Amino acid sequence: MREQVFLYDTTLRDGTQGEGISLSVDDKIKIVKKLDEIGVHYIEGGWPGSNPKDMEFFQKVQDLQLSHSKITAFGSTRRIGVKAKEDENLQKLIESGVKVVAIFGKTWDFQVIEALKTTLEENLDMIRDSVAYLKENGLEVIFDAEHFFDGYKQNKEYALKAIKVAEEAGADCIALCDTNGGTLPHEIYKIVKTICTKINIQIGIHCHNDGEVAVANSLSAVQAGARHVQGTINGYGERCGNANLISVIPNLQVKLNYECVKKENLSNLTSISKYVHEVANQAAPSNQPFVGKSAFAHKGGMHVSAVLKHPETYEHIKPELIGNSRRVLVSELSGQSNLMFKAKEWNYSIDKKDPNSKLLLEKIKEKEHEGYQYEAAEASFELLVKKSFSEWKEYFLLDYYKIFVEKNGEDIFSTEAVVKLCVHDEMVLTAAEGNGPVNALDHALRKGLEQFYPIIKNMYLSDYKVRVLDETEATASKVRVLIESSDGTEKWSTIGVSGNIIKASWLALVDSVQYYLMKNDNLIKVVSNKKEEQFIGLNNH
Amino acid sequence: MREQVFLYDTTLRDGTQGEGISLSVDDKIKIVKKLDEIGVHYIEGGWPGSNPKDMEFFQKVQDLQLSHSKITAFGSTRRIGVKAKEDENLQKLIESGVKVVAIFGKTWDFQVIEALKTTLEENLDMIRDSVAYLKENGLEVIFDAEHFFDGYKQNKEYALKAIKVAEEAGADCIALCDTNGGTLPHEIYKIVKTICTKINIQIGIHCHNDGEVAVANSLSAVQAGARHVQGTINGYGERCGNANLISVIPNLQVKLNYECVKKENLSNLTSISKYVHEVANQAAPSNQPFVGKSAFAHKGGMHVSAVLKHPETYEHIKPELIGNSRRVLVSELSGQSNLMFKAKEWNYSIDKKDPNSKLLLEKIKEKEHEGYQYEAAEASFELLVKKSFSEWKEYFLLDYYKIFVEKNGEDIFSTEAVVKLCVHDEMVLTAAEGNGPVNALDHALRKGLEQFYPIIKNMYLSDYKVRVLDETEATASKVRVLIESSDGTEKWSTIGVSGNIIKASWLALVDSVQYYLMKNDNLIKVVSNKKEEQFIGLNNH
Repeated sequence: MREQVFLYDTTLRDGTQGEGISLSVDDKIKIVKKLDEIGVHYIEGGWPGSNPKDMEFFQKVQDLQLSHSKITAFGSTRRIGVKAKEDENLQKLIESGVKVVAIFGKTWDFQVIEALKTTLEENLDMIRDSVAYLKENGLEVIFDAEHFFDGYKQNKEYALKAIKVAEEAGADCIALCDTNGGTLPHEIYKIVKTICTKINIQIGIHCHNDGEVAVANSLSAVQAGARHVQGTINGYGERCGNANLISVIPNLQVKLNYECVKKENLSNLTSISKYVHEVANQAAPSNQPFVGKSAFAHKGGMHVSAVLKHPETYEHIKPELIGNSRRVLVSELSGQSNLMFKAKEWNYSIDKKDPNSKLLLEKIKEKEHEGYQYEAAEASFELLVKKSFSEWKEYFLLDYYKIFVEKNGEDIFSTEAVVKLCVHDEMVLTAAEGNGPVNALDHALRKGLEQFYPIIKNMYLSDYKVRVLDETEATASKVRVLIESSDGTEKWSTIGVSGNIIKASWLALVDSVQYYLMKNDNLIKVVSNKKEEQFIGLNNH
Repeated sequence: MREQVFLYDTTLRDGTQGEGISLSVDDKIKIVKKLDEIGVHYIEGGWPGSNPKDMEFFQKVQDLQLSHSKITAFGSTRRIGVKAKEDENLQKLIESGVKVVAIFGKTWDFQVIEALKTTLEENLDMIRDSVAYLKENGLEVIFDAEHFFDGYKQNKEYALKAIKVAEEAGADCIALCDTNGGTLPHEIYKIVKTICTKINIQIGIHCHNDGEVAVANSLSAVQAGARHVQGTINGYGERCGNANLISVIPNLQVKLNYECVKKENLSNLTSISKYVHEVANQAAPSNQPFVGKSAFAHKGGMHVSAVLKHPETYEHIKPELIGNSRRVLVSELSGQSNLMFKAKEWNYSIDKKDPNSKLLLEKIKEKEHEGYQYEAAEASFELLVKKSFSEWKEYFLLDYYKIFVEKNGEDIFSTEAVVKLCVHDEMVLTAAEGNGPVNALDHALRKGLEQFYPIIKNMYLSDYKVRVLDETEATASKVRVLIESSDGTEKWSTIGVSGNIIKASWLALVDSVQYYLMKNDNLIKVVSNKKEEQFIGLNNH
C-alpha cells in the first residue's frame, strides 16, 4: 500500500505571478479540465478578493463537472482590527462558491512587525479568527504559513505558535511556505521533520525555485512527513517560479513510491505539460526534465548503441511511463546506429546493402559536411529519408524569386519579394511585402500556393533562427537557418544551409511547406484556375 | 577559514552534447577566457580523441595566457586488450598538450558486461593501466566514475573496487558520476558520505538534471564531503543538462559558506551566464535562478513597498552579490544599479542630477524596451554613453541603401547592395555584391568609406548572430542582430534591433564602424577626393 501525497496546483494563481504569464478566464477553465483529468487533488483558481477576473473564473468553474479535483480560492487572514465576519476579503472567499480555501498568514515575527506593522498577538488573533470563521462557514481550510522557514530560523517559538493557532482554530492542513525560495533541502527536511512531531494535522509544503532546488525541497518535505505538495505545472511562478509539479510527481511516484495520481494518469504528464505551455503561450524548454523533447534524446554515438541495447544505461526512468519517448539525434557526434533508429521511427528499415539506404547514408554525410544538422530539424530529415526511398511528390517548382529592400530617409523602408512558381503546370507570379526579406519571401510563396492548396492557410511559421557556421568570415560565412512551423496543433522544424542567408531561409521555407503538404496529401484537392481535380504528384527524385 | 570547493566546468564538452548547443573553436576560446576571469579551476575543453575540431581547440588554447584555470582534456580508459601506451585515445590526450586529463571508466558491473562486453577483471585493469600511464606522463588525472551511483546501488563491492583501483594507480581525484541523472539528493548524500570514508583522495561529483535535482544533488555531495564539483554554465548538457554551475556556485558560497571563486568574482555570475547564452545562441530564460531577468523582479502591489524597505522579505540573497539587480516592475528604479556598474567601467560616474546622466538613463530604458540588451554588445553601449556625454563625432551620414536579391535557375544567384552616403560633405554612391544582403551592405558601406578613412581596411566582421525576440510571430517578429568585429588584435560587439533583419543588421554595422573610427580617431587622416586634411568631426547629438 503506497502512501498518498495530495497535490495542490497553483498554476492559475501563483503561476500567473510569473513574468510573462497571463491567463484568460477561458485559459484557466481549459487548464482546470486537464488537471482534473489527471487527478490533481486541489486546484487553486485565483484570489477572489484581488481582482474581478478571478471572481468571473469562480462563477464559470461551477458549471464544470469535475471528477477528481476540488477548486480552491486563495486569500489572506482578516485585516488588522476588523472582525472576521466583517472582513471583505474573507467574505469574497465565501462568496466564490468553493468548498476549499487557502488563506495565508504571517509566521515570521520580523514580517509581522515590519511589513504588517501590528503586534505579534494581533497577528495570532488574525490567524485564529479567520480560520475559525471559514470553518464555521463549512469550508475546508488550508493555512499557508508565509515565510515559515525564514521565520522558524529566526524565532522558532513564534513561528510554531502561529501554526499551532491555526491548528487549534480548526484548519485542515498547514502548508509551510518557503516564500523567498532560498531554503535548501537539508534545512527543509530538518524543519518539516520537527514540525510533524508538533502538529497533528496534515502538513503541506510550498516551495519556490530561487535556489534552483524547489523540486528537491518538495521531495525533502515529503520524506520528512509532509503529505500535501503545492506547485505549478512547468514550474511557472513569481521570480524563478514555483516547484514544478511535472517533475515532483514522477520523482515521488516512480522513485520514492508514493501515490500522487492514478498510475494510468502518469503517462499524461508529457501532454499536460505541453498543453499548459501552449495555453500560456510559452516556448516549451526542450531540456525540461521528464517531459522535454530532449529529456530522452541521445546524441553521443557511443550512448546510442548502448541505449538501444539496454535503455537503463542512459535513461533514469522509462520514458513511456510519463508519456514521453526516446529520441535519437542525428548529428556529427552520432554513428550509424542513430540513423537506423531514426529511420525506424518512420518505418524505414535501413539495411547497409540496400541501394536506397546507401544513397541516404551518403546524402546525410554530404549534407552534414555542408553544415546541415538534423537534430533540430526532424521534418527536413524525414523529407531526406522519404526522398531516398522514392516517396516524393513535387508540389511546386521555383522559376525565380527577387527581393528588393530600400531604405530612403528616416521613415521610408520597404521590403518586397516577387516569386514565380510553376504549380501543377501553371506559371504563377506573386509579389508580397514583409518585415524583412525572408518574411516577404514567405508571404509571396504562400500567396502563390494558397490558390492551389488552400490547406496551406492553416500553417504558419512559429520560430526562425539563424546561426553562422564559419565565424571567421562573418557575414560572408555559411549560415544555418532553422524554421519552426505549426498548424496550431503540431509543430515541425526544417533547415537550410547556404553561404547566403536568403537562400538558406528559402530552403528551410520550402521544406516546411513541402513537409506540410506531404503530411496532408490526402486532404489536398488541387484548385487550379482551369479545373478542380485530385492532384497526382510528380514522382520526382 | 572557508573550505575550498574546486569547480570543474564542462560546458565545452558535456554542454555541447545538449540538443541545439553547438560551439565553434572560436566560441570555445571566448568562453575559456570568461571562465578564467572568474576563476573556474578546471575547464574541460573537449575530447581530443573523438573529433578533429576538439584537437584544433587544444592547439589554439595553448596561446592563451590564463591566470586561474587549468585546461583539461576528456577521454576514456584504454580499449580492451590494448596496452595503455599503444592506445590511440590515451595518446591523443597526451598530445593535446594539457596538464590535466579526465578519463571515464566503468564502475557498474552490468555496464562492463553488457555495454563494454568484457570481464570485470579486465575493466579494472583498463582503469589501473590508463591512470598509471597518464600519471607516468606527468599529468594530473581525474577519474570520472561513470554510472557510479547506479553501479553502487546494484553492486557496492565492485563499484568501490573500481574507484579504489583508480586511487591506487595514482589518480588525483575521483569524480562520482550520476550519468543518468536519476539519483535523488538523499541517496547522493548517503553514498558520497560512505565513499569519503573509504577513499583518501579528493572526491568529486558530476550530476545531470533528469530529475530536476542536479543542483541539489551537487550540494548534497559537497555536504557529504566532495570538494570538486563538475557542471556547466547555465546547465547545458545532454538530455536535461548538467548541474548548473551558475546556481551551484552561489548556493555553496553564499548559503553554505564554502569558497568556490574569489568573493569579488561572484558578481560576474550574471554577466557570464548571459555571455554564454549569447555565444551559444540560446535564449536566456527570464526565470533562471539567481541570474535571470525575473529572478529578483517584483510585481506591483504588496511586495513592492516591503521589498524596498526590507529586501530580505522577498529576496533570498542580495542580487548585487551575483551581479543581478532588483527590478520593481512598476517603479522607475529598475536597471539603474546595473547601468551605474557598467558606466563605471568606462570611467563615467552617473549622477542622477546631471542632465547627461538623465538623458542616458532615459535612452537606455527606451532602448531596452525596444529589445536592446547590451550585455553582449558593449561597444554599442559605450557609444550610447559617449553620445549622452557629448563625446560624439559623425563620420558619415546615410542617404539611402537598396538591396537586390535575385534567384533565377539553378546557378544564377546574385545579391547586390547600393549605398549612398554623405561623408565629409561629399556624396558617395557605391555598389557591391555579397553572399547575402547584409554582406553586400557591409561591402558597399566599407567601399564607400575606405577612400575617406583608409584605416577601415584593417577591420572586419568576425561574427554575426541573429535572434528572434518575439517568437510567436516568427519571420514577422523583432530581431536582435549581434555583430562582432575585429582588427586582428581587438574585438568589439555591436547590436541592432528592428522588426526588419536588414535594418537591425545595418544598425549594428554602423555602430561597429563608428566605434572603430572613434577609437582610432587620432590615426584618421581624412582623404577626400578634393583635399587631404585632418578631419574634425561634427559634434552631432
